[in-house]
Parts: sequence; C-alpha cells; structure tokens
Amino acid sequence: MTKRIDFQTTPSHYRHWRVDYAGDVAHLFMDVDERGGLFEGYELKLNSYDLGVDIELADVVQRMRFEHPEVKVVVLQSGKDRVFCAGANIRMLGGATHAHKVNFCKFTNETRNTFEAAGRESGQFYICAVKGACAGGGYELAIACDHIILTDDGTSSVALPEVPLLAVLPGTGGLTRVTDKRKVRRDLADVFCSLEEGIKGKRASDWNLVDDVVPNSRFGETVAARAREFAGRSKRPADASGVVLTPLQRNFSENGSITYSTVEVELDRDKRVASITIHGPRDAAPASMAALQAEGAQAWILRAARELDDAILHLRNNEYETGVLVFRTKGDPALVAAHEKLVLDHADHWLANEITLYWKRVLKRLDLTSRSLVALIEPGSCFAGMLAEITFAADRSYMAEGDFEGDNRPVATLSLTPGNFGPYLMSNDLTRLQTRFLGAPPRVEEAKASLGKAIEAAEADALGLVTFIRDDVDWDDEVRIFIEERASFSPDAMTGMEANLRFPGPETMETRIFGRLTAWQNWIFQRPNAVGPEGALKRYGTGVRGSYDMKRV
Amino acid sequence: MTKRIDFQTTPSHYRHWRVDYAGDVAHLFMDVDERGGLFEGYELKLNSYDLGVDIELADVVQRMRFEHPEVKVVVLQSGKDRVFCAGANIRMLGGATHAHKVNFCKFTNETRNTFEAAGRESGQFYICAVKGACAGGGYELAIACDHIILTDDGTSSVALPEVPLLAVLPGTGGLTRVTDKRKVRRDLADVFCSLEEGIKGKRASDWNLVDDVVPNSRFGETVAARAREFAGRSKRPADASGVVLTPLQRNFSENGSITYSTVEVELDRDKRVASITIHGPRDAAPASMAALQAEGAQAWILRAARELDDAILHLRNNEYETGVLVFRTKGDPALVAAHEKLVLDHADHWLANEITLYWKRVLKRLDLTSRSLVALIEPGSCFAGMLAEITFAADRSYMAEGDFEGDNRPVATLSLTPGNFGPYLMSNDLTRLQTRFLGAPPRVEEAKASLGKAIEAAEADALGLVTFIRDDVDWDDEVRIFIEERASFSPDAMTGMEANLRFPGPETMETRIFGRLTAWQNWIFQRPNAVGPEGALKRYGTGVRGSYDMKRV
Repeated sequence: MTKRIDFQTTPSHYRHWRVDYAGDVAHLFMDVDERGGLFEGYELKLNSYDLGVDIELADVVQRMRFEHPEVKVVVLQSGKDRVFCAGANIRMLGGATHAHKVNFCKFTNETRNTFEAAGRESGQFYICAVKGACAGGGYELAIACDHIILTDDGTSSVALPEVPLLAVLPGTGGLTRVTDKRKVRRDLADVFCSLEEGIKGKRASDWNLVDDVVPNSRFGETVAARAREFAGRSKRPADASGVVLTPLQRNFSENGSITYSTVEVELDRDKRVASITIHGPRDAAPASMAALQAEGAQAWILRAARELDDAILHLRNNEYETGVLVFRTKGDPALVAAHEKLVLDHADHWLANEITLYWKRVLKRLDLTSRSLVALIEPGSCFAGMLAEITFAADRSYMAEGDFEGDNRPVATLSLTPGNFGPYLMSNDLTRLQTRFLGAPPRVEEAKASLGKAIEAAEADALGLVTFIRDDVDWDDEVRIFIEERASFSPDAMTGMEANLRFPGPETMETRIFGRLTAWQNWIFQRPNAVGPEGALKRYGTGVRGSYDMKRV
Repeated sequence: MTKRIDFQTTPSHYRHWRVDYAGDVAHLFMDVDERGGLFEGYELKLNSYDLGVDIELADVVQRMRFEHPEVKVVVLQSGKDRVFCAGANIRMLGGATHAHKVNFCKFTNETRNTFEAAGRESGQFYICAVKGACAGGGYELAIACDHIILTDDGTSSVALPEVPLLAVLPGTGGLTRVTDKRKVRRDLADVFCSLEEGIKGKRASDWNLVDDVVPNSRFGETVAARAREFAGRSKRPADASGVVLTPLQRNFSENGSITYSTVEVELDRDKRVASITIHGPRDAAPASMAALQAEGAQAWILRAARELDDAILHLRNNEYETGVLVFRTKGDPALVAAHEKLVLDHADHWLANEITLYWKRVLKRLDLTSRSLVALIEPGSCFAGMLAEITFAADRSYMAEGDFEGDNRPVATLSLTPGNFGPYLMSNDLTRLQTRFLGAPPRVEEAKASLGKAIEAAEADALGLVTFIRDDVDWDDEVRIFIEERASFSPDAMTGMEANLRFPGPETMETRIFGRLTAWQNWIFQRPNAVGPEGALKRYGTGVRGSYDMKRV
C-alpha cells in the first residue's frame, strides 16, 4: 500500500456512487464497483467498501453542501438488489497495515459525523432507505442518518455482526450510536451486537434500531412521505445557486513537499517534521456575499479551508512517519479577520454558513489528527480568527517576542475575533478557548476584552493564550530542540497522550467515538485474535473460524 | 506468575505500609520493602510498587473506613528519605503479561477512586505530603488525594515521566486527573507530561499541579494546619468505635471453586464459566444499628459484600480464561430487602453509610469487570435491592417464568427497593435503572411503582427489567446455548464491546479513566515500542533507550 492516496475526486470520476437530483430531494445510490478497490487483493462485493469508496462519499457529502443548496433531503439507498451494504471490506481490513486500518476508520467516522450534522447545521437531512442486508459498516451508515426506514420483506435486516463474526468492534461509531443516539436498552444492545444474523421486521423498530418498518408494497411511498416531512423542516433556500468545488491547485514534489495556492507543506522526512504554512489573503475581503459567491471556490476563505483539509488528510494517510506538524502563517492578520468577518456577519446566508461549518470541520480534523501539533507565531504571521484557532488546537504554541534581528516583518501578534468565541466548536462542543480555560472560565472573558487587538507576545502570555514566548536570542534553539525531542518520542505514547489531553471537559458522541470506541478498536486491531495468522480477520472467508487465545484481560 | 494472588491481608502482615493513628488524623507511611515484591525478578526500589503493595494499600483504605470511624484526615507520606514514590515498578511491568498489567492498573485505579471519594462520601479526607521525587504512579497517588503539599527544597518535584521515559501512559488516572480534576491548561499539561524531570517549586503550584509549595522549615506545620482544616469539614463521629474486618472464611478447592460463608463460586475451566451463587440471609435483619454494629463483620450485609468483592478480584486476577460470570442467588428476597432497609434507613449513621458505600464499590467493581456478566433469575432466588442491582449490572439477564417441573422452590421474582433508585450509583453517576432506561426515562418511574412487590417474570418483562423470560420447557437449553456461545467469542472483542455498551450516557472522570485512558494504555501495552524486545519498558535500566517504529497511526 505505497501509492499515494488522493482525497480529491469529482463526480465524473466516481465508480461507486451516483446521485439523482430532483428538486429538494436528492437520491444517493451506493453501487460499489467490485473491481474498483483502492488496492489490489480484494473485490468489493455486496456493496462493501474501502477507503476509496469512502473518499467518494465524502466528496458527495461535501458537494451536496456547497454545490446543491436546493437539496433539503438526501435519501441514501443501495443501487443493488438484495443488499444494502455489507460494511467495510473484510479482506481489505485483513490485509491492511495497522496504520491504514486506524486512519481508514478515522476518516470514515469523520464523514459520517459530517452528514449526521448536516440536518441540524445546514438543513440537509439524510434518510436511509434500507432494502436487503444492512450489516456492520452498512448499518453504521444508516445509524448516522436522521431516519432509517427498513423494508419488512422477511429477509432484510440490520446487523452489527463484527463481534461474533470478525472478533473486532463495529468501527465507525456503531456501538456509541446504538447506546447514545438510538438509546437502545443496553442488554438489548448486547443481544443485537452479538447476533451475526441481525434483527429484522417489527423487532428492529421495537428495539429502536430503525424508525420505520414497512412492507415492500408501501416502501416507496413511505420514503417519499418521510422525505417530504424532513424537507418541510429545512430552512435551506429554494432558489440559491451553488458554488462549484473546482479542482484544487496542487503540486507534489518528489521529496513530499506540496504547494497549494494558499498552503505550503514542507516535509523533512529525516526529521519526521512537516512544516505547514498558510498564506493569508492578499486582497481585501469581498464587498458582499454576492461578491463572495461570485468568487466561488476561488474565494480565499474557502480555498484555504479546502487546501488545509487536503494537506492534513494527505499527511495523515500517506506520511505515517511524520510525527510533528508545525504550523506557521504569513500575511496580514487584519485581512484574515476581514475575510472571516464577512461570513460570520452573514450567518443566515447559506454559503456563509457552509463556509463557517467547513472551517469548523477542518479544525476538528486537526484536533483529531494523531500527530503532535505545534504552532509557531512568528514575525509576519497572521494568526487571526480561524487561523488563531490553529494555535489553540496545537499541543503547544511558541510566540516570538519583540523584534528579531535582521527581520523587517511586523512583530508577531495574535488576533482574536468573534470566530474564537463560538462558531468553531470542538468535538466536545466547547470552543477551543473554553477548553483551554476549563480551570479558569473567567479567562475566556478576559480574552474577549482583547477582541480586535493585535496582541503581542507579553500580553498573549499574560492572557494565557500561548504556551511559551521567546525572544530573538532563544527562539531558534529552543524551538529546534523541542521539535527534535518531540519527533523522537514513541509515536504510540504520543498518540495516547494527545488523545487524552486534547479533550478535557464534557464528552459527546463524537468524543466517545474518537476517544473510547476508537481506542478499544485500535487495541483489538493489534490483538492476535483479530489480526494474527489464525485470527478472525485473516480467516474470514476460508470457512474456518478464528482460533482464539481465550485469556480475558 | 502462576501463584494465586490473594487480595486479603491484615495489618500484621503488611510489608510496605504503616499507619500511626493519633485521634482524628492518621499518618499513613509508604515504606516499600525492596525485597517484598509479589513475584520474582525485580526489587521494589525507591518506593516503587507492584500489585502486592497496592493490595496492602487497598486494605488500609478499607480498614480506615470501617475500623477507624474517628479518622477524619489521612496524611499520606513517604517513610523513606529523599523519595516520595517512584511509581509502578518498571521491571515488574516489563516482565508482566498483558493481562496482569491491565488488571494491575484496573485494581490500582479502583483503590485510588476509593480514597478519592472518601472525603466527599465519608468525611475522611486524604492529604498528600510530598518530600522527594514524586513520579509517575507516585504523582498519581498524590493527585487522587484531596490536597497536595510539596516541599520547596530545590529538588523535590512532581512528574509524569511515563511518556518520554517509558513510552507508555501514566496508567492510574494521571492524564485524566491533570486535565479534569486539577484542570491544568492543556498545553501546560502537554509540557508537564513530556518532561522526564517533572516540575518543582512555585511553578508546580502556578500550574495547579499541587496545592501548596512550602519550604522544608514550614513543611510540618503546614501539613498539620491543612489536616486541621480538613478535619474541620468532616462530620465523622468522634466517639464511635469501629468494626474490625476479621479474616474471611474461604475454602479454595483444587478445581478452582471457592466456598465462602455467603458466596459460592463454582468454576468450570473447560467451559470457561464461573457460576457465582450468593446466599441471602437466613435470619431476620438486626433490630437496630446497635445490633448490626454488635454483629460487626459477621453481619450478613457486610460479609456478603466482602466475600463477593474478594471473589470478583480473585477471578479477575487468577482465572484469566474464565470468560463468563453467571450470577445466581438463593434465599428469601424479603430478608435481603429487610437487611438492606436497616442500613438505608440509617444513612446518617457512619456504619450504615460505609456499608452502603461498600456495596456501591462492589457493584462498580462488577460493572468494570471485563468478563461477560449474566444473571439467572431462577425459582428460589432472592434478587432484591442490591442483589437486584446485579441483574442490572449484567450484560443480560434471563428470568424463569412460572413453575418448573419437579422444582418446589418459590417461583422466580425480582424485588425492587429504594436501593435500586439512588445509593449504588455507577461510575457514570447514574443508577443502573437510569442507565438502563436512558432512552425511556419514564420507565424508571414505572419501575418505582413496583417498589416492594415480588415481580414475576411476565411483569418484569413488561417493565423492561429483564432481557429474556423463559419457561420450564425452554430454560435449560436456551441458557446453556447462550453461555456456551458467549464463552466461545473472542475475549478481546467481548471486552471492547462490553466496555462500550455498559456505560451509555454521561461521562465522569471515572468512566474516562476506565473507558478512554485505559483503552489507550492497553493499546500501547501491546505495541512493540513499549513492550517489544527493543521497546522502552524492556530496555529500561539498561542505559539504552527504546528503539521505536516511528509510524504514527
């Protein structure tokens, strides 16, 4: 698995999904091409999926938000007879490296969270219309939707057969959503999750595993009726035209560095460090939402989000040995704040809302990236608003204090905007400043008093906004030594430590999925009972069951 | 590591701890005997600990509650010069099996939770007086206390060096308490947890890692002053006399079965099933708290708790291949309820309070036991009050319906008491019924309407209190097949599934410690970077650093 995994695609390249648009309801068909696997060695039978299938789904979900403001309901269904979706492809999982499995699950989880939030945040609801077997990751697709309709044809069922069949957990939020979203009684959840064959018919709705169970003869009309109901709840505009997400400008160089239009990634594979520099806008903010919409995907604020998102996904999935991501910005903080202000000031405009939500997702993706994150606030930087959030998402930030010899760029500052006090909530549903000051909530208010100021190092330090401030004399050595040391630590211990320290305070379904469910799954993904030569994942399809070490731990 | 680990001890056998009692303040000295390790192959230098040291600590904490009602403050300190505690013994960890490491951490966590709750629940506060190095598990002992005093002698420090030094996480709640109890700012927590040498002096209190930093010259007086302050907050009685926890009556047989006075454990190692039968009281409840106190450790309600606790710990740590615990009860449910009623009705009596809290801890221990838990509610059983809680703690319960041929015992019933609606909160701070009915809160009230009734199977089913009811015809086969199937599943997948399904709803520090922190730690405990031949745990003390696979996942 060494070819570069590309997270960019377009509808004309899809092999596994198609969408029929019909006014405010879009019909999304999963119709996986068996021979379209991302890697060799497996066939994607029975609508099973691999990362390639999910990259397309993520693209669908993203385009649905930006290119189709008219869509209020997405009906997710199978394009095949007899099967809805058999879940993640087992042979793919059996052959994949641990790192690939873990990052595959993380990305699929992020995509499910995105469409799960679409109804609440964007007025774009997902209805899942299930005919045929809906198992494992298939049911996890369904359970991330707002409503599940199951046909009562005597064979169609929902199932989470991972535990009895594969000796692993449902890996895309299944257990958490069963207990915390569907609130299935825990002993019934236990029965459901240990039944290979799943649950069908009335029992599925009695246990709240699905919302509607209807006979085949009324299936179509029920789906249509539910679609109308959900569409009625949506406030999306009927007459807006979308923004086409044109291909990103990217240039990959041999050594792994990447140049986007607003983001530069400089990779030092020997040192295991990626330096990511985000360039602020050069021009004034668009004068109005109409002007922003006219710029479309070329608008700095949307372009930067897409490029940063792609860079993070690329590094996560293609550069496993890169342990430290160092973030810098270059530009005019006032311009960054002005571009952000336009969208925050028009929160009721669908496009402004989508752009803000997209930044929220990109920043969450950063929080959930299992690499050490460092922000360097240097002279000439533009950490304002959503870019300042990067400094709060980082495990540590270093800020340059005062003038640096021979450096004529403006002195380093940090600029807070209303963006730092609400719109970009973390997975724990707090702002990054609330999370930072969990032990001293008044400090959030103190920070608010500095809204709009260019905060220099000493003040940023006094406000608790940065980890360390260092002057010209100490800066280079101290930053270098820290990054070298960080990159030398055991990656596993770093991953575990960061996963625990980044999310203090309240828990949500999302934090539980990424913090608890994922940690147990990763543990199981290392255990011989699942992945050893006699483990269930390796033996799947051979007709021989996994042979287990029966020690409980 | 095949000798039986015994969780019972008495002060006269302690090798690692001593207590000086002086009125309402007890001084608890950690003074680990280097040669007193539970197993061969390591020396417990620098007040480092293994499970044996912790079994004694758990015994101290338990006796403090029952035998010393007069103690309002426990001052935890080192009995050695220059070192407070170096944490868990690394050579022990390096040589231990995965199962032992995991269960060692679980037990130590439970003990820390117990003394952490003692102030709030029992008016017995723990103050940690730190002189010398306080590292890793040493700091985790401190941070579980109500107050930490650190001497400012230029060398004494607090540290969590696990990540940089050992490539594992602090395993006894350190990360969670740093962020969620001490609420240390997350970037400072990151710095603290990656610093081998730790933090000393004023910085330790500035970052809220400790409460007081005082020079050596004022150390003793500060400790004494704080002890007085905390004692002033306690409502423990000054003149009560304690209940001595006399040795348990136990008989271990060759095949692993155990007979206690109220609990029988029948072990079928081939089938990997332990059947645990709890016998209800034979006699009427004591007439008064004075009568209960006169019975002391012989009182059924205290004896049953101690015996069940010991049985669970024994099975967890000595019978790793036992995958299923099947719970039965025998006796008169009205008597169980009467014995429980006495203590619940006297919640303001210190002994009644301690007994209730002990049952709360035992039931929590059950929730956290990574074995499948099954309750069989059969004719002649006495699942009432705290014993009924076992059926709600179980992953599934089966209840016998109606008369069973040739069985003249009373028909199976379930009896709810006020005990099922408050005193025995789970780690998530909900009752087991609230947790069960998270998706249908009114059902808790419906259950309450059945308080005091002997609920037969059909009604229990209608109330949602049991998973399945089965009559005479189906009972034997169905129960047998289920248990056989359950015992055949991959233990790892079971552990992961149960850890996720048992704790829906809100999260607390405890659920985060056992659910998230532990899962990450267990993952790391499998990774070659920690435990492989070139891993940090194996190489510790050799002068050579661990050699790491640098892939991030």
